[in-house]
Amino acid sequence: MFKDMTIVRIYLRETDRGFHKGLLKEMMSILHDEHKVHGVTVFRGIAGFGRHGDVTSADLLRLNVKLPLILEFFDDPDTVEAAIQALGDRVPPGHLVQWTVSCKI
Amino acid sequence: MFKDMTIVRIYLRETDRGFHKGLLKEMMSILHDEHKVHGVTVFRGIAGFGRHGDVTSADLLRLNVKLPLILEFFDDPDTVEAAIQALGDRVPPGHLVQWTVSCKI
Amino acid sequence: MFKDMTIVRIYLRETDRGFHKGLLKEMMSILHDEHKVHGVTVFRGIAGFGRHGDVTSADLLRLNVKLPLILEFFDDPDTVEAAIQALGDRVPPGHLVQWTVSCKI
Repeated sequence: MFKDMTIVRIYLRETDRGFHKGLLKEMMSILHDEHKVHGVTVFRGIAGFGRHGDVTSADLLRLNVKLPLILEFFDDPDTVEAAIQALGDRVPPGHLVQWTVSCKI
Repeated sequence: MFKDMTIVRIYLRETDRGFHKGLLKEMMSILHDEHKVHGVTVFRGIAGFGRHGDVTSADLLRLNVKLPLILEFFDDPDTVEAAIQALGDRVPPGHLVQWTVSCKI
Repeated sequence: MFKDMTIVRIYLRETDRGFHKGLLKEMMSILHDEHKVHGVTVFRGIAGFGRHGDVTSADLLRLNVKLPLILEFFDDPDTVEAAIQALGDRVPPGHLVQWTVSCKI
């Protein structure tokens, strides 16, 4: 059986490792402790560029330079909507996308 | 020219590295040998939490702790439906999502 | 406020590291310099197989073997359409998927 759910991706970047690590932890804590959202995963890209056009990339000798971080989660539409509202301004404009998926339950 | 296809994401976790490595291999073998599914990719997240709320994360000194694994593939809707049926109970409820994409052919 | 955008994923593989690294750089340069596309991220999978069925995987001792690379970006539908046209034959048939997402602006 399948059920409609909403999947969310939030695009961050490690411009200032400390800052974003803190921001990421804060957002994960909101999703986890307050909203008990399902299926939260954080991915790190190996290269990318953002709105301001600065290219970043990783190689084996520079493991921690300014890499893209993607925070992804999915849950039923109401839970997702409440979670996005709780994240508020922590997510910069244009950095959050969502779409409907069919989840096997 | 574009054609409708279905993309699937399955969310696993390395709670027991041996077990999930085995499960992942078994599922990849089903997708690969039996269903010849297109575009199979496995990603490892750097942090996440699941239904039971235990947060996991990786840093440079703990490369192999309980990280999220995502198995992703896409193909035409019929092939995907058959592949999902073949995977059966290997996928826990609520851990598989799918949606329609437009594939450039 | 939310706005419809198109997200694109392009599936590559490091079969020949030099070649694909070059191809990837060329495609990123087109997306970045010519089309100023938003939210470009490159991910590396840890395992996968393609149309020809050769399984690939990474472990800690073989960090650079033939791994899947995903180039992802999203922007408004017109920008994405122009960017895909500019990428042209650099993307093999069946290796690009796109779908509509709702972006928080």
